[in-house]
Amino acid sequence: MMDSDRLRRLLDDVAAGRVPPDSAFERLRRLPYDDLGFAKVDLHRALRAGGAEAVFCPGKTPDQVVQILRTLAAEHANVLATRADERVAAAVAASGLPHVYHPLPRLIVVRPEAREGIGLVVVASAGTADLPVAEEAAVVAESLGNRVERVHDCGVAGLHRLLAHRDLFGESNVVVAVAGMEGALPSVVAGLIDRPVIAVPTSVGYGTSLNGLAALLAMLNSCAPGVSVVNVDNGYGAAHQASQINRLVSKVR
Amino acid sequence: MMDSDRLRRLLDDVAAGRVPPDSAFERLRRLPYDDLGFAKVDLHRALRAGGAEAVFCPGKTPDQVVQILRTLAAEHANVLATRADERVAAAVAASGLPHVYHPLPRLIVVRPEAREGIGLVVVASAGTADLPVAEEAAVVAESLGNRVERVHDCGVAGLHRLLAHRDLFGESNVVVAVAGMEGALPSVVAGLIDRPVIAVPTSVGYGTSLNGLAALLAMLNSCAPGVSVVNVDNGYGAAHQASQINRLVSKVR
Amino acid sequence: MMDSDRLRRLLDDVAAGRVPPDSAFERLRRLPYDDLGFAKVDLHRALRAGGAEAVFCPGKTPDQVVQILRTLAAEHANVLATRADERVAAAVAASGLPHVYHPLPRLIVVRPEAREGIGLVVVASAGTADLPVAEEAAVVAESLGNRVERVHDCGVAGLHRLLAHRDLFGESNVVVAVAGMEGALPSVVAGLIDRPVIAVPTSVGYGTSLNGLAALLAMLNSCAPGVSVVNVDNGYGAAHQASQINRLVSKVR
Amino acid sequence: MMDSDRLRRLLDDVAAGRVPPDSAFERLRRLPYDDLGFAKVDLHRALRAGGAEAVFCPGKTPDQVVQILRTLAAEHANVLATRADERVAAAVAASGLPHVYHPLPRLIVVRPEAREGIGLVVVASAGTADLPVAEEAAVVAESLGNRVERVHDCGVAGLHRLLAHRDLFGESNVVVAVAGMEGALPSVVAGLIDRPVIAVPTSVGYGTSLNGLAALLAMLNSCAPGVSVVNVDNGYGAAHQASQINRLVSKVR
Amino acid sequence: MMDSDRLRRLLDDVAAGRVPPDSAFERLRRLPYDDLGFAKVDLHRALRAGGAEAVFCPGKTPDQVVQILRTLAAEHANVLATRADERVAAAVAASGLPHVYHPLPRLIVVRPEAREGIGLVVVASAGTADLPVAEEAAVVAESLGNRVERVHDCGVAGLHRLLAHRDLFGESNVVVAVAGMEGALPSVVAGLIDRPVIAVPTSVGYGTSLNGLAALLAMLNSCAPGVSVVNVDNGYGAAHQASQINRLVSKVR
Amino acid sequence: MMDSDRLRRLLDDVAAGRVPPDSAFERLRRLPYDDLGFAKVDLHRALRAGGAEAVFCPGKTPDQVVQILRTLAAEHANVLATRADERVAAAVAASGLPHVYHPLPRLIVVRPEAREGIGLVVVASAGTADLPVAEEAAVVAESLGNRVERVHDCGVAGLHRLLAHRDLFGESNVVVAVAGMEGALPSVVAGLIDRPVIAVPTSVGYGTSLNGLAALLAMLNSCAPGVSVVNVDNGYGAAHQASQINRLVSKVR
Amino acid sequence: MMDSDRLRRLLDDVAAGRVPPDSAFERLRRLPYDDLGFAKVDLHRALRAGGAEAVFCPGKTPDQVVQILRTLAAEHANVLATRADERVAAAVAASGLPHVYHPLPRLIVVRPEAREGIGLVVVASAGTADLPVAEEAAVVAESLGNRVERVHDCGVAGLHRLLAHRDLFGESNVVVAVAGMEGALPSVVAGLIDRPVIAVPTSVGYGTSLNGLAALLAMLNSCAPGVSVVNVDNGYGAAHQASQINRLVSKVR
Amino acid sequence: MMDSDRLRRLLDDVAAGRVPPDSAFERLRRLPYDDLGFAKVDLHRALRAGGAEAVFCPGKTPDQVVQILRTLAAEHANVLATRADERVAAAVAASGLPHVYHPLPRLIVVRPEAREGIGLVVVASAGTADLPVAEEAAVVAESLGNRVERVHDCGVAGLHRLLAHRDLFGESNVVVAVAGMEGALPSVVAGLIDRPVIAVPTSVGYGTSLNGLAALLAMLNSCAPGVSVVNVDNGYGAAHQASQINRLVSKVR
Repeated sequence: MMDSDRLRRLLDDVAAGRVPPDSAFERLRRLPYDDLGFAKVDLHRALRAGGAEAVFCPGKTPDQVVQILRTLAAEHANVLATRADERVAAAVAASGLPHVYHPLPRLIVVRPEAREGIGLVVVASAGTADLPVAEEAAVVAESLGNRVERVHDCGVAGLHRLLAHRDLFGESNVVVAVAGMEGALPSVVAGLIDRPVIAVPTSVGYGTSLNGLAALLAMLNSCAPGVSVVNVDNGYGAAHQASQINRLVSKVR
Repeated sequence: MMDSDRLRRLLDDVAAGRVPPDSAFERLRRLPYDDLGFAKVDLHRALRAGGAEAVFCPGKTPDQVVQILRTLAAEHANVLATRADERVAAAVAASGLPHVYHPLPRLIVVRPEAREGIGLVVVASAGTADLPVAEEAAVVAESLGNRVERVHDCGVAGLHRLLAHRDLFGESNVVVAVAGMEGALPSVVAGLIDRPVIAVPTSVGYGTSLNGLAALLAMLNSCAPGVSVVNVDNGYGAAHQASQINRLVSKVR
Repeated sequence: MMDSDRLRRLLDDVAAGRVPPDSAFERLRRLPYDDLGFAKVDLHRALRAGGAEAVFCPGKTPDQVVQILRTLAAEHANVLATRADERVAAAVAASGLPHVYHPLPRLIVVRPEAREGIGLVVVASAGTADLPVAEEAAVVAESLGNRVERVHDCGVAGLHRLLAHRDLFGESNVVVAVAGMEGALPSVVAGLIDRPVIAVPTSVGYGTSLNGLAALLAMLNSCAPGVSVVNVDNGYGAAHQASQINRLVSKVR
Repeated sequence: MMDSDRLRRLLDDVAAGRVPPDSAFERLRRLPYDDLGFAKVDLHRALRAGGAEAVFCPGKTPDQVVQILRTLAAEHANVLATRADERVAAAVAASGLPHVYHPLPRLIVVRPEAREGIGLVVVASAGTADLPVAEEAAVVAESLGNRVERVHDCGVAGLHRLLAHRDLFGESNVVVAVAGMEGALPSVVAGLIDRPVIAVPTSVGYGTSLNGLAALLAMLNSCAPGVSVVNVDNGYGAAHQASQINRLVSKVR
Repeated sequence: MMDSDRLRRLLDDVAAGRVPPDSAFERLRRLPYDDLGFAKVDLHRALRAGGAEAVFCPGKTPDQVVQILRTLAAEHANVLATRADERVAAAVAASGLPHVYHPLPRLIVVRPEAREGIGLVVVASAGTADLPVAEEAAVVAESLGNRVERVHDCGVAGLHRLLAHRDLFGESNVVVAVAGMEGALPSVVAGLIDRPVIAVPTSVGYGTSLNGLAALLAMLNSCAPGVSVVNVDNGYGAAHQASQINRLVSKVR
Repeated sequence: MMDSDRLRRLLDDVAAGRVPPDSAFERLRRLPYDDLGFAKVDLHRALRAGGAEAVFCPGKTPDQVVQILRTLAAEHANVLATRADERVAAAVAASGLPHVYHPLPRLIVVRPEAREGIGLVVVASAGTADLPVAEEAAVVAESLGNRVERVHDCGVAGLHRLLAHRDLFGESNVVVAVAGMEGALPSVVAGLIDRPVIAVPTSVGYGTSLNGLAALLAMLNSCAPGVSVVNVDNGYGAAHQASQINRLVSKVR
Repeated sequence: MMDSDRLRRLLDDVAAGRVPPDSAFERLRRLPYDDLGFAKVDLHRALRAGGAEAVFCPGKTPDQVVQILRTLAAEHANVLATRADERVAAAVAASGLPHVYHPLPRLIVVRPEAREGIGLVVVASAGTADLPVAEEAAVVAESLGNRVERVHDCGVAGLHRLLAHRDLFGESNVVVAVAGMEGALPSVVAGLIDRPVIAVPTSVGYGTSLNGLAALLAMLNSCAPGVSVVNVDNGYGAAHQASQINRLVSKVR
Repeated sequence: MMDSDRLRRLLDDVAAGRVPPDSAFERLRRLPYDDLGFAKVDLHRALRAGGAEAVFCPGKTPDQVVQILRTLAAEHANVLATRADERVAAAVAASGLPHVYHPLPRLIVVRPEAREGIGLVVVASAGTADLPVAEEAAVVAESLGNRVERVHDCGVAGLHRLLAHRDLFGESNVVVAVAGMEGALPSVVAGLIDRPVIAVPTSVGYGTSLNGLAALLAMLNSCAPGVSVVNVDNGYGAAHQASQINRLVSKVR
């Protein structure tokens, strides 16, 4: 791969007369454009927010997960393995990699490193069954360097519990609202505050919950502006975007 | 049709020896069972709550609607014609039948008669676009003899408006909660009070509202017990059941 | 939490000059509104109909279920655990909590206490496969203090069995009609009587039953007024609302 | 096209030595198989039940419909044009073709010819809005030579009206049961008699009727054996199959 | 239960003056109509086509299945248990009931009795994976007294295999056409013959086969008239209706 | 309504002995909580981001729209009327209200007022048919005070056009990505930059685009983290949330 | 834009010492990759198969369509405008552009130019209602330089008509198979020949045809390998890919 | 079966006077057309592309699979068994059949035989979880005699990896593009090259991926012409059609 050093050497060679301009032209014209800086975008991307630092475990063997984690952990702290079942957790435990396993969200943080916690992301969830997804969002957001407050069990059928946290919602830069069943929590939260609300439908429920589709549709049809939605059970994705917003606000880029 | 009189005469004839038991047996064995009281059920039904006193207009010509209304109005007051478009309204206006036309819910009440208004049914709606369905429920409930209070524009994105009516909800025997979009209103209301809430999804919204399916699913998945649901835009059906409940409570059968 | 005593003390302090009005104003303006009576609503709610006295087991560990039941049973009789699988049942059995386990509906009643059985709720079901859901509705309704009559195996393909119970339907305050497959039972029942019918679709069937969606749609489209619907397999929800209606009618609030 | 005459002449030529076997072999080996009797199947088919004698009008211009009808009417009586709107009806009226136009089912019968009416097909429908589809089934069945009895307005919410016709159902060879909304009629009819019931869902209803899908699903999930289903609003198809059955029973092939 | 004898005795008592007409009137007016012949319908139904002689096993314990089978077998031969898994088969084997177990369609025939095989029902299937459903249809049809011919592996991608059986199709009274995937078999068969075709979609396939919905939709939209459809995998239902048709044609009622 | 002044007066009265603490306690305990500051939330909300300054026109008469706009415009500039058809536009034109009508997004801005344009929101759209929705997002975002850059016609089938704007994307605080058909634009954009991407599916397409559901599903399943989604065609909602983010970042609250 | 000349000049400058290597490095590292040949790809693409030479008319005004056509026609012959309604056709007619309008497929060919017709593409359709889509595919394929044979009205219910064209299918390089309703045509064709079959579902049908979804699903589940599918009614897309295949085969690139 | 020899003998007999033309006519008129060459089509088909040489394992016992493979392998090399689970693999291993088992795609090649690899098929996949389906396509294509290049892990969120292979795409005759989640890969590839792209959606994803339906819909709605689609996870079908195209191009028929 043509990287910066090789490009610089090539130009030096041209300047020094060791390579005629025509040969350099041909090499540059045909070289894959990613050799010429594009890969940096990718490198840049890897350095930025950790997209490359997270491993989605389903469909990979425990060995594969460990191998990828080892590679990533060589360069990064707080590498994440999401939806890690017990076999993956055991393999990581056996690997000698320093890590913390969060059983509720089935999340592993490799080379965990406390971060200062800039800004505030509130993760709110409606029922106890929504906790695994909410906790995935919370731990991911923390690993990405955000200060996180959890507000649990504030479904819309018990408004007083929800309203008791109104001030906290108002202090946040962004709220991640996690709910299954009728999925009304994000609408109510967005009606109380003027902050972006990222809604996460969960597959909690039965019958016509349709594995979270009912909650998803409710969230997409929110009567309150300021709500956007991620995939069902996608606590990771919500935390990722919440972190993007929070870091922009906190000028940590 | 064999009605009570004819049955009694038949038995008198048997007792008097005018009809031998064998002939009576044959007549009774083969007679349609509805001749023996079953039709009364139907008659009884027509007298009860007005199921037979309402005409669903779509799919009928204006003339047909007028003809049915005339027949029903010969025996009943407060005969309803639901989903009556302008052509139907014009035909009824031209018919000479005493009536009131409610343009918002497209509802006609023929031989309107104020009723005392027993019990209390609260009809709550989330947005202004839900008003036609809510008003259908309200006028139908009034025509069926209930006292009705309307609570409009109390969507969950503006909780304070909804909470301001909490006492009213608590005084009712049953609440009809009408909402489109994310359909969260019934859950919130049912969380506030211990009264049956009949939820009516409306086809209000766009995109993934799926003509009311999103609201319907949300209502079916309510995290608050005490919510049952009728078809999309079915204000009539909700009012009918609300009236059944209210009349039971008020001992008006 | 600011409760009544503290509010009263604050006002006393103002009256006594110990707290200037401005400080009191600031404290009152910012205090969470639930401190000022709103929590009572919640307390009131917990005392009313038992919403807080039921535990939905899926998604909770057996230990968690036992813990919650123990807390609730400290203050309430007839605490319910719904959808309790065998592991939960074993944990509750081992807990020493007085209880009855109903295996068909997988329902546990903790601190069971016979109640007088006010009013009448009829629970009707179409086929034998609908029995678990029907029995959930029946036992829940009994636990909430209703008199319950069960009418089983009265699917619409065998009308005579259904019609044989017509008088019983007529004596009830509310009918819970449970059916899978084509879900026609509620329509037929509602055509026979003038009582609210709460329809419960079940996930019984195969192929295009779509896990109960076919029955649900049929019930929502009932040609008989007086039918409202709850979620698929939601016997608990139907019993809850039936009990609300029955208690209203029986003036037991 | 190689028809019977030409095949016979070829064989005669072989027998007479006018065509050598090799040439005949080549001609026979390569000739399209439909030349050798297969087309007769088609001809046979056209003569049988009238599949080719019906024109589905949507997507064709009035002129095209008239042209096809003229061709078919040259050889057949009782040629059908289904779903003919007013423009088609006007074009047929102007064409001089002898015909009857049935406006309710939007059905034209060209060269109408009374047939003796073998066997009995009962066409039952649930509500007045189902009449167009039911009438399509009835007129098509009559045109195909069946005796038809119509039983209208016997929805399952008014069982006595349905039960009053039980004997008639029992006398039929096949019942076409037409219903929208919850689509329960076929189940109830099939529970009463031991005859094949062909169910026709209609697009009657609103909201979650989903243009007839709710009724279709209910019919497919009938708890009564003996029910099969055709497409939504497909009165023609139901009548066609009912006629096939009836003619088999009546030995009219 | 009031049966014929009791009605006759009542009338005799009236004639003899032992019961006054008024008392008889009251008894007759209130007696459940099923006491007056309606139950005969049910009895009649049980005797007819075996609706009551088949047990759908899912949702029942092996013991329950054995108990029901024992009761039915006391009065009927060829009692069917459909969708019987291995545990049910073992329980029936242990029960001492004379029976045959068909493992492919998971079907048990209790008190099997060869029947003469009137008429002809052809059961055609598209692929080898459709065989369990096809065989359910075939064995059920045989048990109900029909002559059955099986035509397997004639999917539409190998037309010559299908066409080779054209004459057999033509000799039948009714064809049961079983297919998964694209579900095109019934259309092709119905295009070849003028006999009713009962289509059975199967849940065979993957991805967008949607567990048989794709085949179901294709069958409902058949371009060939003469096709009606039963539920996905419902070989039993198709055989039941095919038998009704065949017996009508063969005058075996 | 009890507002701050009245609360302060009450406390002054208590301090002055004009109102005994007990009376004050009763008044405060029962007063609607919205009287005690909650309404301020609402007022605060109205002042913040303009939720109350936008009118969704469908379902309202032109007169109603004008009336609401007039009220809002009395206190706010840049009041929006979304999805305004020509009749609404004409009514607003006739009303004398100062305004600009944007015909492409059918958007009216009443009392338009140029704002300084803090931060940068990029609105990117895939095809020309997506322009109305993209333009709704762009104009709304501008009206809410954001600097907006439009990037049109950069569908994923022409990557070079999209890549040419990579730097612009990187300078933004948030990207609104609008696309119909396969809805891939947001994924590609989110892969290029580390900024929150708000995806707006449009109802552009035909056949299996399912009025935007295909694009919606694609966006929810984006393989790139950092994407959240709003309802189909909901340019307004995306702009609203984008503005919330941008203003947070720019410290304009 | 940095094109080849500018790159060459830059390298010459480096060689000549006019630009130091460091400056050149910086310029090269940051230059947009599309400056270095990527745009040529696009140019290349425009020259190739005509993706840019077709205009999808819906969502564009007649004037816009004319303007785009004029631009494209300046450089290309056989420019296509698809789904052109009458207003667009009139505008093009008034524009003076040389063109042919095909009313059935609503397709305009601007600067029509007969092409030699390399290879053979067969366009087969099932019913007369599928003709508009089939004809769109046929005319597009012809405009792209393919030899096209049309085979119409060969639905699977009339196999002999389909089989009569077997040899023609066998001579083609690719078959475009167009069908609505049950969508079985592609399966049958693919079973007859060993050529790629591109299936086009059409929105022809009613009820459960679901606007072409039923046909689409059937085609995706074809039991015959060698079938791939495009969007509902997408005759253009099928012809485009058929042409790609045909030109590859015919070595016309 | 009447084959060519028998036809020739019959004609000889006619020519020799041993069979009168009338008898020959009758025999020919009635003989199944497949006797006259049609079966050759089937034979031809079996010899062509291997439709009969692949076994879809689900729904077959390991013994059945071995038996079919043994029969096919008697006449063909490179016989395929797709979706072979471990039990099938073990049975084939025990059978003594020469074979290679590919565990990732669960594919068995019996009597594997390296083929020269004409033309070029590129199999591109988006994520690691798509590898099993991609590898199924690749191995099948190789077994059918194509040269295959694999391009993995080039999802649209990392464009540079995808763009790095642009030249390879351009050299292919056909690209098989495999992707789950948002399914955008085929659109991007088709935008880069002028070759047919066969898109394979995979069931990779969660929540609203709907087991691959989201990716399928995205692919059907591709904004890039030149994309056709096969069923979810159908790597075999895509490879089959790709091979058809490639062999046509390479003149290997």
